[in-house]
Parts: sequence; C-alpha cells; structure tokens
Amino acid sequence: MPNDTPEQRLAALGLRLPEVPQPIGTYVPFRIEGGFLYTSGQGPRGHAGVALRGKVPSEVGIEAAYAAARAVGLNLFATAAQAAGGLGRLKAVKVLGMVNADPDFEDHPKVINGCSDLFVAVLGENGRHARSAVGMASLPGRIPVEIEAIFRVLD
Amino acid sequence: MPNDTPEQRLAALGLRLPEVPQPIGTYVPFRIEGGFLYTSGQGPRGHAGVALRGKVPSEVGIEAAYAAARAVGLNLFATAAQAAGGLGRLKAVKVLGMVNADPDFEDHPKVINGCSDLFVAVLGENGRHARSAVGMASLPGRIPVEIEAIFRVLD
Amino acid sequence: MPNDTPEQRLAALGLRLPEVPQPIGTYVPFRIEGGFLYTSGQGPRGHAGVALRGKVPSEVGIEAAYAAARAVGLNLFATAAQAAGGLGRLKAVKVLGMVNADPDFEDHPKVINGCSDLFVAVLGENGRHARSAVGMASLPGRIPVEIEAIFRVLD
Repeated sequence: MPNDTPEQRLAALGLRLPEVPQPIGTYVPFRIEGGFLYTSGQGPRGHAGVALRGKVPSEVGIEAAYAAARAVGLNLFATAAQAAGGLGRLKAVKVLGMVNADPDFEDHPKVINGCSDLFVAVLGENGRHARSAVGMASLPGRIPVEIEAIFRVLD
Repeated sequence: MPNDTPEQRLAALGLRLPEVPQPIGTYVPFRIEGGFLYTSGQGPRGHAGVALRGKVPSEVGIEAAYAAARAVGLNLFATAAQAAGGLGRLKAVKVLGMVNADPDFEDHPKVINGCSDLFVAVLGENGRHARSAVGMASLPGRIPVEIEAIFRVLD
Repeated sequence: MPNDTPEQRLAALGLRLPEVPQPIGTYVPFRIEGGFLYTSGQGPRGHAGVALRGKVPSEVGIEAAYAAARAVGLNLFATAAQAAGGLGRLKAVKVLGMVNADPDFEDHPKVINGCSDLFVAVLGENGRHARSAVGMASLPGRIPVEIEAIFRVLD
C-alpha cells in the first residue's frame, strides 16, 4: 500500500470516480478557502443498483444504506479530487453523515461507515477523519443518506 | 453590477439589514478565527409578514418557507456585516440549511434557495457557497427554518 | 477567576475530565488542521447518573437533558484537552448541539446550554462560541444529545 496512489487503490477496489454531481439550487459543489475544501452535501445519485430513496431501515436496510453511503463517498471524492487536483492532494478532516432514518433508528454509525471505510481504504492515513453520524427527519428527494465533508488540500 | 457595492445591491432589492438578532442562551452570534467567520444558527425573527412557526410544508408552504429562508439570510448578513465591517468584506463559504420539515418532505433545496439566492444577489461571485439543505425533526421555537453559515473575511 | 487555570475551575466545580471516549466506527475522535481542532460528535457516555437513552422531553426531561449535554461537554473537553495539550490551549469556536427530540419540541437551547454553560464556566472568555441547537429525528444508540465542536488551538 505505501507505494500506491489513492487512484491505484480505488482501481484495486474495482471502483472509479463518477461524474461530478451537479447541485440542485443556487450553490456550488465545493469551496476552497484557507486550505480547507468544503463540499456541499451529496446523495448517492449516479451509481447503478444503489438505493436512491427511502427511510432507513424500514425502506432501505442497513446493508443497502451502507452501500448508499459508499456511493456518496465516491461522489464526494469525485468533487473533491476535481477541485484539489487529484485524490492524492486530499486529507479528510470532518464528515457530517446524515441518515434519513426512522425515529427509533440506532445504528447510524453502521451506515456512515460506508463512506468512512472508503475514505480510509483509498486515502490511507489521510482518510481518517472526525465524524458525526446522525438521523434526519427528511432529506431532499427522499435520499437515504446525505453527507458533507471538509478536506484539507495538501500542497 | 460590477461597480455596485453589496450594500447598494441590497438597497436595489428593496431590502435593508435588520437589527442583529441576539442569541437565546449561553453563546455568541459569531466567532472569527483564522480568517473564518462562523455564525450561530439563526431563524427568521424580526421580519414583518414572515412565517415564524410551523412545519414545512403542512403548516408553512414552500413559498412562505422560501421567504423565511430569505429573512434568515438577512439576519445572517446583519450579524456577519457587523462582525466583519461591512457586507463587502464577506465571502460565503458554507451554508447548513435546516428545514423544520414533515417526514416525507423532499424539496429542502427550494426552501433554502431563499437564503442562497439572496447571498448571490447581494454578494455576487463572493456569495456562491457550498451547501447542505436538510430536514430537522424540530427546531427551537418551532421556527420553520434555521441556517448557520461560514464566511471568509476579506482584507 | 483571572488567575485560575481552566483545570482549576473544573476542579472548583467538582468536576474532572473523564476517560477519552472511543469512536464506534471507522473514524477518529478529533482532527487538528490549520490550527482548528474538529471533534467527532459525542454523546453522554461514561457519566454516572446521566440519561443515556431517550427522546427529549417525552422520555428525558429538560433538566436531565441539560445534565446530559453537560456530560457531553465534559467528554468533548477530555478529547480536546488531550489533543491540544491541556484545556488552557482551547478556544471554543463553534458548537453544533443535536437533541434527540420529539417533533414539537421547542426548547433545544435550554438543553444545549448544559454544554455551553460548562464551556464558559471553565474556559472563561475562550469558552464563548457560535452555536446551533437543533432537533434530530434519531441519534446513535438513542442517546438524548450529541454535540460536535470546533476549537481553535492556542499556541
């Protein structure tokens, strides 16, 4: 692993960066200020076979929600890599993982791990981040998971 | 527009900055650290005719919620302009738009655009920001919308 | 107070820092980048007599939720003090206080004040922060309160 690039690790996982998702509304996909890259919240759009709508776990089970969170992670990577000039220039700082969950759901970490595991698998130590994983009353388009991230841009 | 100041654009929209809202609790309206201005979450208080309470959309419709989000944007502007020394010293970085929404609401972006549209109309390119627009189970005082923002303070 | 250290103030309140809580999942308790310390969201674990589960206020009353938020604040202090090299090196910047609340709850500020009051009591002026206090549909393990914080690390 030490000699691999993040792009090589991504390929070794059988994954590739999707098209950069475009915002719905008056805003932009990211902002870089003072060395920090702030992403907009993103959903799981653009990934075949991924659950795009529904409450967790009554409509989207935990495993499917984990896969959705991983798809969100890929979308965040696509946006951030384009913004920073490659995955190798990204250091994850903070993730806010939002699950469209039923009122008594307790396992938000198991869902958002789909994104966090991807960050660590691809970025290595630079993928380790502070995080909150919480339950929202509703999300745009009834997506099961929305995640926003802060990265540090490396020189 | 190029020669206008943000204050002139605000006036051209028929708007003016309200009084700076005061926090309810043990905290402050903003903090500036390392060139970043963090605002506290704000509601739509202090604007005539704006919906101050209720779930979106069952009690507050989308248009009324858009107007509430715009009022929140004005409150954020008032706080941030006072803190930074004028609207012209603000560059929007990140917005977290929180809607007090019914469990099946899907159109959070249409609501939070009320704030985002204002930021861009008044600050121009400096108003464009990363954003999440999500649904909360409840908000203080049953306000329909609460928004927190991060600005960069320009020299 | 001017000559007291934050550690002395904590002791004068009859409080001590708990063990640093360990994350549940693929992430780390904090990240320091560019002089900012981002904590992961934390709950009230590890404090005797503190409510660990339940909706506010139907299952956990406001006073008990205030005590839970104070316990969360102690956990955040433990993490951040260990990361920064002591409470005296911390300046609070931003708090996101998330209450596992019933849909019509209105008093989120009264709950999150449990954390904010502690920050100010122990850190003095350096404890004053921007804040949002909002209602989540659900939280991990059904904890009544989860809070994430951003601190500035002082030299």
